[in-house]
Amino acid sequence: MTDPSIEETLGPLRLAVMEQGDIVRQLKESGAPDSDVKKGVSELRARKKILEDKELELAPIGFELLDRNRLEDLLKRRFFYDQSFEIYGGIAGQFDFGPMGCDMEDNLLDAWRKFFILKEKMHKIKCAVVTPEPVLRASGHVDRFTDLMVKDVKTGECFRLDHLIKDELEKVKADKSATAQVKAECENILTRLDGMTKEEMTAVLRQFNMMSRNGNDVTDPVEFNLMFHTSIGPTGQIRGYLRPETAQGIFVNFSRLLEFNNGRLPFAAAQIGPAFRNEISPRSGLLRVREFTMAEIEHFCDPNDKSHPKFNSVKDLEILLYSACAQMEGKPSKLMKLGDAVTQKLIDNETLGYFIGRIYQFLIMVGVNGKKLRFRQHMSNEMAHYARDCWDAECLTSFGWVECVGCADRSAFDLTQHSKATGAKLKAERKLSEARIEEVVDVLPRKALIAKQFKAEVKIVLEEIEKVDSNIIESSIKQEGKFDLQVNDKSYSITSEMVEVRRQMKKVHVENFVPSVIEPSFGIGRILYVILEHNFGVREGDEKRTFLKLPPIVAPYKCCVLPLSNKPDFMPFVKQISQDLEDQEIPSEVNTSSGSVGRRYARTDELGVPFAVTVDFDTLKEPHSVTLRDRDSMLQVRLPVNEVAAVIKSLSCGKLSWSEVRAKYPAFIQQE
Amino acid sequence: MTDPSIEETLGPLRLAVMEQGDIVRQLKESGAPDSDVKKGVSELRARKKILEDKELELAPIGFELLDRNRLEDLLKRRFFYDQSFEIYGGIAGQFDFGPMGCDMEDNLLDAWRKFFILKEKMHKIKCAVVTPEPVLRASGHVDRFTDLMVKDVKTGECFRLDHLIKDELEKVKADKSATAQVKAECENILTRLDGMTKEEMTAVLRQFNMMSRNGNDVTDPVEFNLMFHTSIGPTGQIRGYLRPETAQGIFVNFSRLLEFNNGRLPFAAAQIGPAFRNEISPRSGLLRVREFTMAEIEHFCDPNDKSHPKFNSVKDLEILLYSACAQMEGKPSKLMKLGDAVTQKLIDNETLGYFIGRIYQFLIMVGVNGKKLRFRQHMSNEMAHYARDCWDAECLTSFGWVECVGCADRSAFDLTQHSKATGAKLKAERKLSEARIEEVVDVLPRKALIAKQFKAEVKIVLEEIEKVDSNIIESSIKQEGKFDLQVNDKSYSITSEMVEVRRQMKKVHVENFVPSVIEPSFGIGRILYVILEHNFGVREGDEKRTFLKLPPIVAPYKCCVLPLSNKPDFMPFVKQISQDLEDQEIPSEVNTSSGSVGRRYARTDELGVPFAVTVDFDTLKEPHSVTLRDRDSMLQVRLPVNEVAAVIKSLSCGKLSWSEVRAKYPAFIQQE
Repeated sequence: MTDPSIEETLGPLRLAVMEQGDIVRQLKESGAPDSDVKKGVSELRARKKILEDKELELAPIGFELLDRNRLEDLLKRRFFYDQSFEIYGGIAGQFDFGPMGCDMEDNLLDAWRKFFILKEKMHKIKCAVVTPEPVLRASGHVDRFTDLMVKDVKTGECFRLDHLIKDELEKVKADKSATAQVKAECENILTRLDGMTKEEMTAVLRQFNMMSRNGNDVTDPVEFNLMFHTSIGPTGQIRGYLRPETAQGIFVNFSRLLEFNNGRLPFAAAQIGPAFRNEISPRSGLLRVREFTMAEIEHFCDPNDKSHPKFNSVKDLEILLYSACAQMEGKPSKLMKLGDAVTQKLIDNETLGYFIGRIYQFLIMVGVNGKKLRFRQHMSNEMAHYARDCWDAECLTSFGWVECVGCADRSAFDLTQHSKATGAKLKAERKLSEARIEEVVDVLPRKALIAKQFKAEVKIVLEEIEKVDSNIIESSIKQEGKFDLQVNDKSYSITSEMVEVRRQMKKVHVENFVPSVIEPSFGIGRILYVILEHNFGVREGDEKRTFLKLPPIVAPYKCCVLPLSNKPDFMPFVKQISQDLEDQEIPSEVNTSSGSVGRRYARTDELGVPFAVTVDFDTLKEPHSVTLRDRDSMLQVRLPVNEVAAVIKSLSCGKLSWSEVRAKYPAFIQQE
Repeated sequence: MTDPSIEETLGPLRLAVMEQGDIVRQLKESGAPDSDVKKGVSELRARKKILEDKELELAPIGFELLDRNRLEDLLKRRFFYDQSFEIYGGIAGQFDFGPMGCDMEDNLLDAWRKFFILKEKMHKIKCAVVTPEPVLRASGHVDRFTDLMVKDVKTGECFRLDHLIKDELEKVKADKSATAQVKAECENILTRLDGMTKEEMTAVLRQFNMMSRNGNDVTDPVEFNLMFHTSIGPTGQIRGYLRPETAQGIFVNFSRLLEFNNGRLPFAAAQIGPAFRNEISPRSGLLRVREFTMAEIEHFCDPNDKSHPKFNSVKDLEILLYSACAQMEGKPSKLMKLGDAVTQKLIDNETLGYFIGRIYQFLIMVGVNGKKLRFRQHMSNEMAHYARDCWDAECLTSFGWVECVGCADRSAFDLTQHSKATGAKLKAERKLSEARIEEVVDVLPRKALIAKQFKAEVKIVLEEIEKVDSNIIESSIKQEGKFDLQVNDKSYSITSEMVEVRRQMKKVHVENFVPSVIEPSFGIGRILYVILEHNFGVREGDEKRTFLKLPPIVAPYKCCVLPLSNKPDFMPFVKQISQDLEDQEIPSEVNTSSGSVGRRYARTDELGVPFAVTVDFDTLKEPHSVTLRDRDSMLQVRLPVNEVAAVIKSLSCGKLSWSEVRAKYPAFIQQE
C-alpha cells in the first residue's frame, strides 16, 4: 500500500476518520452523556467502513479476482462440504463435511494439537456440550448473547433486523424512481448500520415503513438469544443450552486442572469441540453457521507476572498490526515486530504477544496467505467489558475481512463470575516474599453434628465444605443462618450449629489470588474456508481448470496413484505403491477410472492432492520406475518404484523440497 | 470353563434354558398368540440370566477381584474424567474428560482411524448434530426410541420404571419381616425384569403398591422419548433433536458418497462424533451417559454379493462366539474360527464376518482383555425388525457383560425409509449380464411452463426434479394432481401440466437397487472404560500401589522424565531428553516435583505411563547415560542419553519389545 496515487485517494478518508476519532476521545474525556458518545462512535465506525472499503478496492492483493461461484461449485462437486439434510429440504446454516472436508479438518486439528498442545505441554480437556442454565447465566450468555430480530405479524416468520434493513434499503436504492437524495440517505444508513443501536435501527425501520419479505407488518425489534435451548432429564424442569463456546467448561474445571498441574501457575488448558449458535438467518456459507468446531486455549497466569519464557522465539516476527489507535486515526495497519509492539505497550503483555506470534505462525503454516492476514485490536468501545486487551486475527476473503481467531486477555472475569455464582474457591496461591499477619476466616466443621444430620454422607459433606470459600460460608450464615451446600444435584443445609466460624489474626506465608486468563480462540470452520479461498486458483492458459494449492499438511490426500490405463500388468505396481504409502501412513487415493491421465490429474488438482504417481509402460521394464508429478509446477520426474513412498513422505512433512527432488531425479516430459 | 465340577453345577441350568428355548420355538412354529410367545420369551430370558450369573460366579477369570471404588478413586484423583459442572452441583450422566481421559480418547480414535478408515480406504464424513424431526421420524427414533418411566404425582419427579421396581424389590427383600415366599417372589421378578413388557411391569408396580422415592403415589408408566429436543431458528416452529446416533447423517448423504466413489459399490463411510441420549436416570458411570462419542461405519454393498476380498485375512481368528442358538439352548459361548462360522452360516455373510474379525483385532490392540470379550448374536426376538443378523462385541466388567460395539447387517431398511420419506433416489446401479426389455417411467419436464412459474429458480427446479424417483412423481401426480418438490426450506408445486409422465417399454442394460448396509458401531466411552477396568491392577506385595497397565498405543504419555533430585546439574539432561521426545512427537511428562523417585514412579504408574527415564548422578559422567524403567515389570536398564528417545519411540509403536531392550542394554538395579 505504498503506491502514492492510492494514498492520495485515501488521504481525505483517513483524515475524516481521524477527526471523528478526536471528537470521540474528547467526548469521553469531557464525560459527555452516553448517548452522545454512542452517536460519535457510530459516526466513527461509518467513516472507518468507507475508508476500509476504498482500501480494499484499491489494494493490489488480487482478492477481487476470486470467482466465488466457481470455488463453491468445486467444493460441492468434490464433496468438501454441502448443505445438511438436503434430501429433506435442508436447514440454513448447517453443513455436512464430506471426505475431503473431513480430512482437511482432521489435518488442521492434528496440526493444531501438535503446534499448541504438544509443543507447549498444555492440558487437554473435553467438557459436556449440554450446559445447565446457571453456568451460562454466570458467564453472561443468558442475558447478553442476543441478536435483534423482528417478526412478521401475520406469518410469525422472523428476520434478523440488520439483514432486513440492508435488503430493504438496497431495494429502495435500486428503484428507478428513487431521487438522488433518497439514494444518498440509504447509502449513508447502510454504512452506519453495523454500529447502530436498537433505537436507531427501529427508527430506520419505521421511517421507511419496512415490511417483512412476505409484505406484512413487522413487530418492534426484540432481542433473540442465540443459544439452542433444551431440557435435561425427563421432568422438563432442568433448563439447558447447547454451549455457544467451549471456554466455560474449562473455567468450571479450573480447580481440577490446577491440582493436576501440582498447584502451579502458569499453565494452559485446551479444548477442541463443537459449539452451537441458533442464528436468526444464517448466510455466507461456512462463515456463519449454526454448528461449528472451536479450538480454545485458556492460559491461566499470575496477573502480576504476564511475562512468557518463550517470547524471545517470536519477538522478531513482523506482523501486520491494526491497532485501536490506528483505527481511531484513520491510519492503515502497519507491519511491526512483535517485540517492538510489546515494548511499546501496544500489545499489553508478553504472554498475549507470544500467542499472537504463535497464531500467526500457525495460520501461515496451514495455508493462510500472509498478505491477507492482519491482527486487529478491539477498540475500547467494542471490547467486552471484562477484556483488558483483545486482538483478532482477521483474514481477507471475498466476504471482506473475517475474524478467524480471537486472542484476548480476559483478566479474572470468568473465574470471578463462577466463583460468585457457586461459592467455589477458584484461586491459586502465591508465596509471599515475607510472611505477614492477616485476619483469616476459618470454618471448622463440627463433625459429630454433621454426621448425625447427614449420616452416610458425612464424608462427602466434609470434603465439599473444604472446597468452599470460607468468607462465603461466613457471610451466608450471618445473613441467613445457614449455608446451602450443592453437591451432585443435592443440597445440604449447613446450619450455624454445624460449623464454628472463627476470625483470627494469623501469620501467613502465601496469599490467594484469582488468576488472569489469556484466551486464544480459533474458529476452525472459518479458517478452513479461508484456506480454501486463499489457495483456489485457475490454471494459466486454461480457464476451465480450477485447482486447490493446499499445503501438504492440510491436503486430504498427499498422493494419488494412477495407472496409465487399465492394462492388468500395471496393477501389481499400483498395489505395491499403494501398500508402501499405507505402511508409511500416508493418506492416498488410487484412481483407476477410465479417463485420460490429463483428466485424472485435473481431478487430483481439484482435490488439492499435492503429488501424483503414474505407472506407465516404462514401469514394466527393469529397473522399475514411475513418474512423480508436482501439483503446483505440474512438472514431473522419474524415480525408482521402491523410493517413491519415502520421497512422498519427506515431501509431505517438509523435510524435502520439490526443487531438491528435481535436482536428484531426471525430469520426465509429458503433455498434459 | 472346562472344569468338570463347574459344568456339574451349570448342567441343570443349561437344561432349563434349553427346555424353555424349545417351548418358545414350538410356540412360534405353531403360530401361537403373540402374548403367549412374549411370555415364553420372558421366561427364557429369566432362565438365561440365572445361568449367566452362575457362570460368572464360577468363572476363573478373576473379574470379581476388581475393587471398583479404588479404580474410581484413581480416575478422579488423576483427572481421567469426572462429573461435569460439579461446582454447580452437577448433572447426572455428564462427564468431563481431563487431560488423561482426553489423551486416551484421542489415542483410541487415532488408532481407530488408522485401523479402519486408512487401511480400508473408507470415506470420512461429519454430519450435523442438530437434526430436524422428519429425518428422525423416518428412521423410527421419534416413535420408538423410548424408555418407560413413572412420575411422582406430587413432586413431578420422574423415575425410570425398571430402576424403581428394582430398588423397591431390593428393599422388600432386605426387610427382616419379609417371608421366604415374598423374598423368592422378589428374586423371581428381579430375574425377569429385563424381559418384561409394559403391562407386566405395571402389574408389579401396583401389586407391591410402589411409591416414588419421596413416598408419594406414582402415575401409570409412560413412554419417554430419549432424544434431547430443541427448536431450530427463531420462530420455534422447526422442531429438532440432538442426534441419538451418527448413522442417519450418513444415510441421508448416500447419493453424494456414491458419486464421490464414482458410482461404484461396495464402499464404506465412517463418522466419528458426539451423540446424545436424554436418559431418565443415568447410572453406572461412563457406561450410561447423556453425551457420548460414537464411531460408526456404514458399509454399502450389493445385497446379492456380500463377499469380502479380505475375508481370508481374518478367517483363522479364533473368537468366542455366543450364538442365538447357544443362548436358546443354554449352551456356553464357544471359541470358533471365523472362517468356520461363516461357512456354517452361523454368521450370515463374509462382510459381516470380516468386520467381526476386525473389531476383535482392534479391541485386543487397544487393551481389551481377550478372555473377557465375546461376540453375542441377537436372538430373533431382540433383533431390530430391520436387521438380518446382528452381533454385539461384549466385554466383561464389574457391571457384568457390557455391549461395546454392535455389528449389524441392517439390510436396505434405512435407505428405503429415507427414500420413502423424501422421494429421493437412494439407489445404486448394477450392470445386467444381458440387456432386457422393461416398462420404464420417464418424467419429462416442460421447461417453458416451469420457467414461467418459477422464473429465476428454473435451473434449480429442473436439477432437483432429476433427482427424484420418477415413480414417486408419477404416483403423486396421479393421486393429488401435483408433486411438492422440497428444496432448501422451500416447496415448489409441480403440477401435472409442468411435466409429461411417460410409461414405455425400453431396453435396459442396468438395474437399480437399494444397497444393503453392514454397520459396525462403536461406543468409544464404553470401550475406554473397559480398557481402564481390564488394565487396573495392584502391585503384588504392596496393596496401596494401584496402577494402569495401559498399552502404549492408548497410554496418555508414553514416557515420564524424572531428575533424581532438584540438583541444577540434572536439568540440561532433562531438557535435552524432553526436547528429543518432542521432536519425535512422543507425548511425555517431566516430573520435577520433590517426592522420592519411588513416589514419582507410583504417580506415573497411576497415569498408565509405560516408560520412565531417570536422570541421576551417573548421567553427569561421560559417556552420559540414563535409566529406563518398564512399568509392567518395574525392571530398569541403563542406556546412552542420545539413544533413549529412539528406543522409546520403537517401544511405543511395537517395533521393539522390552525383552529386546533388556537383552541389548545392561540391567540397572535400584530399590523402589
